[in-house]
Amino acid sequence: MTDTTTRKRARSGGGAARRAERGAVSFETARFITRNIPDYEVLGEEALDIIEANAETILEEVGVNFVNNPGALQRWRDAGADVKGERVHIPRGLARKLCATAPSQFTQHARNPERDVEVGGRNLVLAPIYGPPFVRDTAGGRRYATMADFEKFVKLGYMSKWLHHSGGTVCEPTDIAVNKRHLDMLRAHMTLSDKPFMGSVTDPDRARDSVEMCGILFGKDFVAQNTVMTSLININSPLTFDDVMMGALEVYAEAGQACIISPFIVGGAMAPVSIAGTLTQVLAEVLAGVAYSQLVRPGAPVIFGAFVSSIDMNSGAPTFGTPEASHITYGAGQLARRLGLPFRSAGSFCGSKLPDAQAAYETANSLNMGLLSGVNFMLHSCGWLEGGLVASFEKFVMDADQLGTLHQLARGIDMSEDAQAMDAIREVGPGGHYLGCAHTQANFKTAFWKSELLDYKPFETWEDEGARDTQALAAARVEKLMATYQAPALDPAIAEALDAYVAQKKAAEPDAFM
Amino acid sequence: MTDTTTRKRARSGGGAARRAERGAVSFETARFITRNIPDYEVLGEEALDIIEANAETILEEVGVNFVNNPGALQRWRDAGADVKGERVHIPRGLARKLCATAPSQFTQHARNPERDVEVGGRNLVLAPIYGPPFVRDTAGGRRYATMADFEKFVKLGYMSKWLHHSGGTVCEPTDIAVNKRHLDMLRAHMTLSDKPFMGSVTDPDRARDSVEMCGILFGKDFVAQNTVMTSLININSPLTFDDVMMGALEVYAEAGQACIISPFIVGGAMAPVSIAGTLTQVLAEVLAGVAYSQLVRPGAPVIFGAFVSSIDMNSGAPTFGTPEASHITYGAGQLARRLGLPFRSAGSFCGSKLPDAQAAYETANSLNMGLLSGVNFMLHSCGWLEGGLVASFEKFVMDADQLGTLHQLARGIDMSEDAQAMDAIREVGPGGHYLGCAHTQANFKTAFWKSELLDYKPFETWEDEGARDTQALAAARVEKLMATYQAPALDPAIAEALDAYVAQKKAAEPDAFM
Repeated sequence: MTDTTTRKRARSGGGAARRAERGAVSFETARFITRNIPDYEVLGEEALDIIEANAETILEEVGVNFVNNPGALQRWRDAGADVKGERVHIPRGLARKLCATAPSQFTQHARNPERDVEVGGRNLVLAPIYGPPFVRDTAGGRRYATMADFEKFVKLGYMSKWLHHSGGTVCEPTDIAVNKRHLDMLRAHMTLSDKPFMGSVTDPDRARDSVEMCGILFGKDFVAQNTVMTSLININSPLTFDDVMMGALEVYAEAGQACIISPFIVGGAMAPVSIAGTLTQVLAEVLAGVAYSQLVRPGAPVIFGAFVSSIDMNSGAPTFGTPEASHITYGAGQLARRLGLPFRSAGSFCGSKLPDAQAAYETANSLNMGLLSGVNFMLHSCGWLEGGLVASFEKFVMDADQLGTLHQLARGIDMSEDAQAMDAIREVGPGGHYLGCAHTQANFKTAFWKSELLDYKPFETWEDEGARDTQALAAARVEKLMATYQAPALDPAIAEALDAYVAQKKAAEPDAFM
Repeated sequence: MTDTTTRKRARSGGGAARRAERGAVSFETARFITRNIPDYEVLGEEALDIIEANAETILEEVGVNFVNNPGALQRWRDAGADVKGERVHIPRGLARKLCATAPSQFTQHARNPERDVEVGGRNLVLAPIYGPPFVRDTAGGRRYATMADFEKFVKLGYMSKWLHHSGGTVCEPTDIAVNKRHLDMLRAHMTLSDKPFMGSVTDPDRARDSVEMCGILFGKDFVAQNTVMTSLININSPLTFDDVMMGALEVYAEAGQACIISPFIVGGAMAPVSIAGTLTQVLAEVLAGVAYSQLVRPGAPVIFGAFVSSIDMNSGAPTFGTPEASHITYGAGQLARRLGLPFRSAGSFCGSKLPDAQAAYETANSLNMGLLSGVNFMLHSCGWLEGGLVASFEKFVMDADQLGTLHQLARGIDMSEDAQAMDAIREVGPGGHYLGCAHTQANFKTAFWKSELLDYKPFETWEDEGARDTQALAAARVEKLMATYQAPALDPAIAEALDAYVAQKKAAEPDAFM
């Protein structure tokens, strides 16, 4: 990977690009979080040793399935695994050894270099919701998502100060053919935002399209030498790696593009009903998946993923923001750090149908736990509703505002002499008031995090203004943001080339709707 | 303090009491939390040393005011402090030395011994909101609180599984004279619930009434030898101890009853705008207050309190659930542990006017931080709305439900062989499903925390049932709980004696309304 200061990109090459940039409106985006606070470690050394030993036992004794993927089986055989049918038994220690070539941190580049993100280490990168087939807002209720909704979410994400990443399938554009919608989604991320984004994983060919389109946006050489996408590879828990996801992983790993390798766990259904058992299975799955990525290309950037929810044993519905999910996420973070891998987990998770108090309790539980568990890449960090079935416009801006609290928490406690404020305490003295003192006047603008959404007004003012709840305030904010949106500048030649690529690929095959 | 197994109480003495108990309906109440998880430590040793040294400097150089309290000034003089006017300059190390006689943990007894709570150590006791002049519910909107509202909150608290404590001024019964309402409030806690409660602090005489009434409820000898009340003594931050609060503290400390000694901080107004400065002032104030309690009676049970909010510099309104409050609370917990004192902080804090998403984000931020910061006594743990001006019936049951998540989180991660679930993983194997496996069937009932309020139903069911938000679900739950309330049994002779005491005290002086 080249250093950011020396790279050359297509977008900075042309006079047209420079001209376009001069006219652009820029929005403030916070730098990705770098934690200056410790991680929360819920498990002791002994417990971690047990889980690691158990995961190795599972990999060796039970093994994992690589489905419909003779190439993968051959790679495993070559690496020394015991392959029986589609079952891969991985000798103790082999997977961990293979994982050692994966980088502990990598840069994902954005077309705007100021938006590049560092994934791993003490960093936390925030990306929006991924995958919902429905959208919801106050005005339109709950409905199938369309490409217009998708574009609106990308625009909101671009304008969200605390969001570092444009994400991937922020909602499923169900009005576009299944075999073509990835083209429109990628083009939207590339043209409507200048933040980093994710590639398509629903078919290896679509992963190839993603790499090709990045070649147009960043330049082929740049893409060959740098990571410009982080894509989501789910494991079919328990212990199953299907050919579609592995096919996409192979494309990305070979291209040096990053993948989140992520067990998808509803505890009690796809994993044991216990925390320790779930962590064991998560670790076994990640070890196998990451090891496989390194068999494809040693050094390919990958992330230790853990998507975790519990199950409501009455209804069978997944539940979110629960204590069990917190325990698993804290523990998984410790396991990821011991493996030396970047960690992905948490998000604005909730089971609620509406952006109401349930949604916010569950989301805040999950966001706080995500920060303290050492998550490096947080997918779903805003907009999530109804167990991920629904992307909510209001909740998107509500959550995106709360992400500011994570930034402020991560700053840690300033212990400088100025922050010790001894002179202020001396100046004010017993019974005094700090509002007017010199220290307060010098520091208040940066001292406290400030919501751009929540209501702090006196009761009477709030009542006069219509006694709005958070959802109503959020609806107004969505409208206000959308009214001021302006696309970031892009070299028109690149935009045209992207359009041409999309048009050519769309013309090449008939629409498929499943 | 006597052991719980050897004590005798008035309530268990009479045949009438036994008869009353047989007819009672009992509600399940969870035992207070004992943490099996580590605390979150945001500050390093060096930072803690700096804050502790700075606090000593403040006590010595700046000093604290004990207002209208010649007795307190004399006690300080006798202890070796330098008293100038009402200003007490405490030599380095003196306050900390005096604090050493305060117990690190104490038992607060309830009239039902099963509801006794242990305050300190790894424990967390949850008590409801304290002090709001207004109440709110969906049906009646926002209005001044009455004694009927007060009684309703005490009943809801009694029936709330995750609430260990009945609290104190759950709302201000503004329809009762200021100089008499403490009598009605105490009687309500004593008769409508059997959980532990708080005494009156608004006047030393009212503190004496609280001790007297406890004598009737528990027996005078029992009260003389045991802690049966934990009461809230606020410090007038910055660095001021007024005669009313100190007068109440003196009554309670002399009677061996517990007090929370609590700076009341709106950061930027009553303390410096910085975290480190606020922690320094909080520590100085608590050191002075706790030291004073030990001057009154060495060994008197006390709690290191920290009520913390930030300020919105635009409106001047206090803000809640903010990152700054979290930092201060984490840090204050560390300081309390180094002092060897029980710690009080956090709660269901929010600035929202309604029990909406803002309320829940802020509350969840605060509750999670409270658990991880090592809080031992959490006042305001449910029902808080609008910066504490309003007690909400709906939010009371919403928050009380969320308190269940703290219990489950505090359990930590079971690493038993059964919880490791290796046989389950072997049984299910790649591609299988855990719902039906033996391990899941044996464990699912206790494995996951389950809300008694939140909605986990399929979308269609939820819609058919009226598409209710959390507030609507909570309103229904309040109604349901109130319909099933039955008072815990109480010896009729005790009830009569309490009535007689209240009547006699009320008759003894005219009503005062401010």
